[in-house]
Amino acid sequence: PNQYLASLPTTIFTIMSQLAVKHGAINLGQGFPDTEGPQDIIQVAADALRDGRNQYAPLTGLPELREAVAASNQRFYGLEVDPATEVVVTSGATEALAACLMAVVEPGDEVVVIEPLYDTYLPALKLLGAVPRCVRLAPPHWSVPEAELRAAFGPKTKAIMLNSPMNPSGKVFVREELELIADLVREHDVYAICDEVYEHLTFHVKHIPLMTLPGMRERCMRIGSAGKSFSLTGWKVGYVTAPAALASVVAKAHQVLVFATAPNLQRAVAYGLNKDDSYYEGLSAQMETQRDLLRDGLHRLGFDTLPADGSYFIVADISRHAAGRGDVEFARWLVEHAGVATIPVSAFYDPQGDAAPQNLIRFAFCKKPEILREALKRLEKAL
Amino acid sequence: PNQYLASLPTTIFTIMSQLAVKHGAINLGQGFPDTEGPQDIIQVAADALRDGRNQYAPLTGLPELREAVAASNQRFYGLEVDPATEVVVTSGATEALAACLMAVVEPGDEVVVIEPLYDTYLPALKLLGAVPRCVRLAPPHWSVPEAELRAAFGPKTKAIMLNSPMNPSGKVFVREELELIADLVREHDVYAICDEVYEHLTFHVKHIPLMTLPGMRERCMRIGSAGKSFSLTGWKVGYVTAPAALASVVAKAHQVLVFATAPNLQRAVAYGLNKDDSYYEGLSAQMETQRDLLRDGLHRLGFDTLPADGSYFIVADISRHAAGRGDVEFARWLVEHAGVATIPVSAFYDPQGDAAPQNLIRFAFCKKPEILREALKRLEKAL
Ligand SMILES: CSCCC(=O)C(=O)O
Ligand SMILES: CSCCC(=O)C(=O)O
Repeated sequence: PNQYLASLPTTIFTIMSQLAVKHGAINLGQGFPDTEGPQDIIQVAADALRDGRNQYAPLTGLPELREAVAASNQRFYGLEVDPATEVVVTSGATEALAACLMAVVEPGDEVVVIEPLYDTYLPALKLLGAVPRCVRLAPPHWSVPEAELRAAFGPKTKAIMLNSPMNPSGKVFVREELELIADLVREHDVYAICDEVYEHLTFHVKHIPLMTLPGMRERCMRIGSAGKSFSLTGWKVGYVTAPAALASVVAKAHQVLVFATAPNLQRAVAYGLNKDDSYYEGLSAQMETQRDLLRDGLHRLGFDTLPADGSYFIVADISRHAAGRGDVEFARWLVEHAGVATIPVSAFYDPQGDAAPQNLIRFAFCKKPEILREALKRLEKAL
Repeated sequence: PNQYLASLPTTIFTIMSQLAVKHGAINLGQGFPDTEGPQDIIQVAADALRDGRNQYAPLTGLPELREAVAASNQRFYGLEVDPATEVVVTSGATEALAACLMAVVEPGDEVVVIEPLYDTYLPALKLLGAVPRCVRLAPPHWSVPEAELRAAFGPKTKAIMLNSPMNPSGKVFVREELELIADLVREHDVYAICDEVYEHLTFHVKHIPLMTLPGMRERCMRIGSAGKSFSLTGWKVGYVTAPAALASVVAKAHQVLVFATAPNLQRAVAYGLNKDDSYYEGLSAQMETQRDLLRDGLHRLGFDTLPADGSYFIVADISRHAAGRGDVEFARWLVEHAGVATIPVSAFYDPQGDAAPQNLIRFAFCKKPEILREALKRLEKAL
């Protein structure tokens, strides 16, 4: 078999979810909501199965979904997007990431990525023969190290992958940081793959797509996710917004990787995207309440937390409790002895790179308040 | 953008389907049924949306679907398959093909493929840096050229891709041909990626999975498709059966490419796979009736047809009607002047290879009998 793929460890999400089941633990590891998405969206998906449109959807997605994606770009960010040529529907954001990477890199190209990073970025890159240039955000504020970021760009750079709001850190990049990135992207004439799946999950800060900055419209591929925007992570419906010249190549990659996505789910997502602002506000308000609940509880237990203005996640510093144990060991101890599953943050760093921080674990707060309270109680008891 | 991807032409299926719409033509091009799949399967999919399982499915698929795939291997082919470790559910057979290729090839590896071939095989291969070694079936009987096949295998060979029942030819490989392939696979110690999406669509010949031949159990990745087995091509649910050591690597590829597939569709497909034999017999009997109807009609119109014992497709020789025009030109003429869309078979050959046959076009017969009759009438009028 392919040596690199075969050498990849089982994803930490699967490992921790399995441990959670084994130990009857509350699963604050893998990021998925424990409530269902809106019933009306689900109903549209069910009804759509019954009116005779169960054959192949068009390669780039159903027109109604492409139109809804374009409208949502306009409504939230003032971006003018042509639904016919600038949107590609994918089977989830993971496929979108793979397709966008395939669309721009050739073997030997360098791609700048920011650690801690989502666990498919590096394998996707490496399988295409591209070379990652990792830049690390600095705890405890997840600040962007300007000099290192600058130094990561060079003549072989083809693209940067930017995840904001960011998993696992919960960081939402602010305008100043985005301007730095945009400057580098322009200066080095490269592309940006913008993973914005948590775009509607920010807490009193505004999500700014890199694509809205000067010169970025023609260089960015912006990825959204119905799973995250509608709490239906299993549906695996994603969408890429990109200038036509890039979107057409992303579509070619999609053709080779998957070809098309289930029409009934696409129709339901189109319906969902057109929901009024109160839906989106309600979603982020609920998530913020949960973040606050978990964060305040962790503080009471003596954990420092790092800034988390968006996404499903907050990272805690375990130094005071770990008694010298690393994050992996501590996370295993927590699932076994506290009955709470988390994710060690070192899993989000290049295993071939310098030693990752060993003092951070990630908690998911996309869970019901009563579940979060019970998790805090369990932690209190065990610590 | 990636030069190779950008250089790929728009898939012939999209082009011909668009021309079909433009000219109000009957679409015997792209292979999808014009009847819906079984209503009970669709109902299961709709019901499954409403009981709270809309978050991520497990990476390798829901247990009930993996069990149904294993049971179906046993029932139809006597293959013992462990549902826990030897089945990977994918977002359609296209993703399955990409994942299986990724699982075994490294850049520079050679892969034997048989022309005419499905249009993602070559791009998928080339994007992974693998090198195709094409072997051509010989019309008018789609016979396997033994010497050339032998010569295509060498020290750099990593795998063969075998599509039986085959698209676009409609050929079903017989035991003798499979034995030759199995011998070469064993002799050169390589893998076989077996695209068997039309496994339940054969007409009075038995489909034999290569995996059932001696020594093949541990070398084959066998791909099935709910879209094809249940006439629901839009759902994009596929499944790979492979020995555990390979399946685990296919799962890693799936993790990077897509990660998981919609749970409600998986549950409906699990239900579908467990249907009794009469369902499968009914499906192939209906398809055979349609093949006969179209084939006999084409013969009456003076077309010779090539053997088509399975799949959705039959290939016709246009020599008598084309008056020197090539297949592409003739297919365009047919859609415009006869109002019938087909696919020129030269689209299924490596564009970098020797000149493809110019005298063959593919008809899809996965359409209602009255539609096929109307298409034949239109052809008669135009020719
Ligand atoms: C695709 S499983 C992981 C879900 C997720 O985004 C996370 O937990 O980080
Ligand atoms: C994925 S679109 C093409 C459908 C098909 O298998 C064919 O027409 O050959």
